[in-house]
Amino acid sequence: MNDHELHLVRLGIDTHQEPIVYMRADCHVCRSEGFTAHSRVRVETNGSALVATLNVVQGDLLKPGEAGLSETAWGRLEARSGQIARISHAPPVESLSALRSKIYGNALTDPQIEGILRDVVAGRYTDIEIAALLTGFSAAGLNLDETVGLTRGMVTVGGRLRWDQGIVADKHCVGGLPGNRTTPIIVAIVASLGICIPKTSSRAITSPAGTADAVETLTCVDLDLPSMRRVVEREGGCLVWGGAVGLSPVDDLLIRIERALDIDSEAQLVASVLSKKIAAGSSHVVIDIPVGPTAKVRSRENAVQLAGLLDQVGTRLGLKVRTIITDGTQPVGRGIGPALEARDVLSVVQGDVDAPNDLRARSLALAAEVLELAGHCPAGHGERAAEAALSDGRAWKKFQAICDAQGGLREPPQAQHRWIIDAPEAGRIAAIDNRRLSRAAKLAGAPSAKAAGISMRIRLGDFVETGEPLFELCAESAGELAYSRNYLAAHPDIVRIGANE
Amino acid sequence: MNDHELHLVRLGIDTHQEPIVYMRADCHVCRSEGFTAHSRVRVETNGSALVATLNVVQGDLLKPGEAGLSETAWGRLEARSGQIARISHAPPVESLSALRSKIYGNALTDPQIEGILRDVVAGRYTDIEIAALLTGFSAAGLNLDETVGLTRGMVTVGGRLRWDQGIVADKHCVGGLPGNRTTPIIVAIVASLGICIPKTSSRAITSPAGTADAVETLTCVDLDLPSMRRVVEREGGCLVWGGAVGLSPVDDLLIRIERALDIDSEAQLVASVLSKKIAAGSSHVVIDIPVGPTAKVRSRENAVQLAGLLDQVGTRLGLKVRTIITDGTQPVGRGIGPALEARDVLSVVQGDVDAPNDLRARSLALAAEVLELAGHCPAGHGERAAEAALSDGRAWKKFQAICDAQGGLREPPQAQHRWIIDAPEAGRIAAIDNRRLSRAAKLAGAPSAKAAGISMRIRLGDFVETGEPLFELCAESAGELAYSRNYLAAHPDIVRIGANE
Repeated sequence: MNDHELHLVRLGIDTHQEPIVYMRADCHVCRSEGFTAHSRVRVETNGSALVATLNVVQGDLLKPGEAGLSETAWGRLEARSGQIARISHAPPVESLSALRSKIYGNALTDPQIEGILRDVVAGRYTDIEIAALLTGFSAAGLNLDETVGLTRGMVTVGGRLRWDQGIVADKHCVGGLPGNRTTPIIVAIVASLGICIPKTSSRAITSPAGTADAVETLTCVDLDLPSMRRVVEREGGCLVWGGAVGLSPVDDLLIRIERALDIDSEAQLVASVLSKKIAAGSSHVVIDIPVGPTAKVRSRENAVQLAGLLDQVGTRLGLKVRTIITDGTQPVGRGIGPALEARDVLSVVQGDVDAPNDLRARSLALAAEVLELAGHCPAGHGERAAEAALSDGRAWKKFQAICDAQGGLREPPQAQHRWIIDAPEAGRIAAIDNRRLSRAAKLAGAPSAKAAGISMRIRLGDFVETGEPLFELCAESAGELAYSRNYLAAHPDIVRIGANE
Repeated sequence: MNDHELHLVRLGIDTHQEPIVYMRADCHVCRSEGFTAHSRVRVETNGSALVATLNVVQGDLLKPGEAGLSETAWGRLEARSGQIARISHAPPVESLSALRSKIYGNALTDPQIEGILRDVVAGRYTDIEIAALLTGFSAAGLNLDETVGLTRGMVTVGGRLRWDQGIVADKHCVGGLPGNRTTPIIVAIVASLGICIPKTSSRAITSPAGTADAVETLTCVDLDLPSMRRVVEREGGCLVWGGAVGLSPVDDLLIRIERALDIDSEAQLVASVLSKKIAAGSSHVVIDIPVGPTAKVRSRENAVQLAGLLDQVGTRLGLKVRTIITDGTQPVGRGIGPALEARDVLSVVQGDVDAPNDLRARSLALAAEVLELAGHCPAGHGERAAEAALSDGRAWKKFQAICDAQGGLREPPQAQHRWIIDAPEAGRIAAIDNRRLSRAAKLAGAPSAKAAGISMRIRLGDFVETGEPLFELCAESAGELAYSRNYLAAHPDIVRIGANE
């Protein structure tokens, strides 16, 4: 065996997504190369290679001549037990100089941005380097050219779909509003009217549920590209997870750290949204921007600025973008969390009499904008068309057909652990803190625990008596329920009740 | 055994400094608490607790009922094999909201800064959160009040020395200039003249050697506080590693990530430098700011700005600060790397005839400033006093006495692997790229490989013939030598030779 070769061992350690290689401290490769814990090394097997971070092992976890791999590294290398790997210094990552230059206040050129994105996609950035990238972009800000470059770069380093239809519709919500799960309803309405809407959605970044998380409780969302294409060709629409079709490989890598840090910059947001639309082959995109003191966008000024940026960047890249600024002062519908939101969606598309009115109204308004932007009906006539498709069951039929094509419609799970939060006093509901409500839903387990989250019982302006339920906490484990209850106990003002009138 | 208890196992995995806990995927605690890979958990044993990141283990690395700890976690908990640990959700880290607010462009208050620093010191920040903190501070910038707050906060969360002497001198170099190892020489001169200079130095952040790294090749630098005090009481000066005396616990945690990211902000730099001086009990501080196109400070404007900030923050915190802007266009002395720089220091304090003149001159000039600032001699008379102490052997005697008190003077190690880089053409040395030279020294193994680095054979303005040596690469392993040579081959213009005159 050569100087730099070791036999691979699967240690079965799940380090989340960061590839780790484990080597003995007394290993000949460590010694001859001067490797220490946290060195970046290149691991090469027959035909594939990756860059990993080194963890040095003392004791007998590994035998002499062995190197262990974390689960991510094992999977990416498609390694086999005992296979020989060659281990060497990772080449310096040149694009990090561009990143540092950005952090120190200089604008990035398109080639610099593309270089950064290529290195991220190739797995050359460590988690802390991705954290620096996201934070640097947020804190230093990107100008218009950089934002266009970032959007274009994200498309360039990933795949791109092409459709036969001239008009391909899409919609997006910038998020931050718990329960705002209009997408599945809009897709059902729009597709039922014959407009192509091949919807790819993301999972939650910092929220208790993304559209993909919610739809996953109803049907299969991790379709590959050929399957997605089959569904769209048959039904004119789909509801799949963008990560599975691999259209935004950079975004998938960044989102994990964004989620951990809970940060999200304007340029990053614009690039992430628009690059996905372009990669999905969309031509006409409606974007919902909810505004409220505790929504992601807090003021009308910020919303107007974000709308302008989406519009400018979209136009530069040949996309027709229409932004709609909506009310974001309180959660939409009743559920917050994947399965709870899926139930709201079902009740609206099925036309239940007790379906949440606000979710229905928002979905119709946004569907109307899609219909008008896509030229299906003249300005002012979209809402009537959308309303008709929902009321006469065409949307529900289309929804079922799409779910059938994706693997069948299923019942969302129910939480086993529940706790009702009561009004501590009588009065009118004066304010609802979306952020802390989302936090409580996340502490209860959402989005990874599908049934977890919050079920709202009140809306702004409602009058409640002392002891009346405000909302119900749902969890899949007792520990998470307790964890979330502790948080709620520390923040008793998430739902603010005004003076008794 | 209780629901949330597991038996601890030492897995012997060195993850650098991040505490990791390893738990089986089917473990009852993981399941009841909803833990997944990368969850942040609190691990509590009898009397101590820490927050760690979870790695989930499949297979039989751990038996049911066991939890593994990384070496850092094991050490911090002072764990014993088989000991019972209680594992629960880590409490939310409230100061992260303040950090996010900073990233989004808001100024921080003193209590917010102190909250962040307390959480960092308590180990509540993950590596990616520390990366976000450093990047956010660099990219968003801190104003004067925030910089004062950061400096004060760093002192508050750490220890603070008090000395009987009214005047306690100190000096610091903002770095970025390879080989600029004046500190040990200045300490020897100043202490030999009876001025108290209890010097604590740092290890390299992004450079091939810090003062502590270089001095460590001559004597012991990781003295605890009582030992340091004993040395200072006996000799009036010392040369210890600040990390060992624990005066800057925050800085020690931040530096590891700063080094990995290779970023360094102005406010962070000022706070780091001045907080250490205040914590060390210094009253009069001289700060060397080398300026050059490839030094850390690139222009005179930047140097003046940094000097102003050091002065303002120092004054607000009751410190007498004198900043000196010096030439930073080329390395100082001959060696770059711990042992190579230590040899230069030795030759100057010993008064060798072939000691590097530039290092000697810089040391005398800075020592003179210290002597004048501390009131040992009137303005304009410092240099003569310093020169006398160096020439008549008092400085060398003091240097040996300090090293003796710290555990004895020893010989710096020599590198086994060497390679000479020759001039590819004849001509005059027109420019030297400090940054890339440092990079090459680091790739050769410095600072962790003590003997590694670069030995310079030329200075700016020298005339060289084709094939004459420019510098020598030194490494402790063949792999590192090769790695650095590859880098040099890719960057042949590190030493730029002008047209033959």
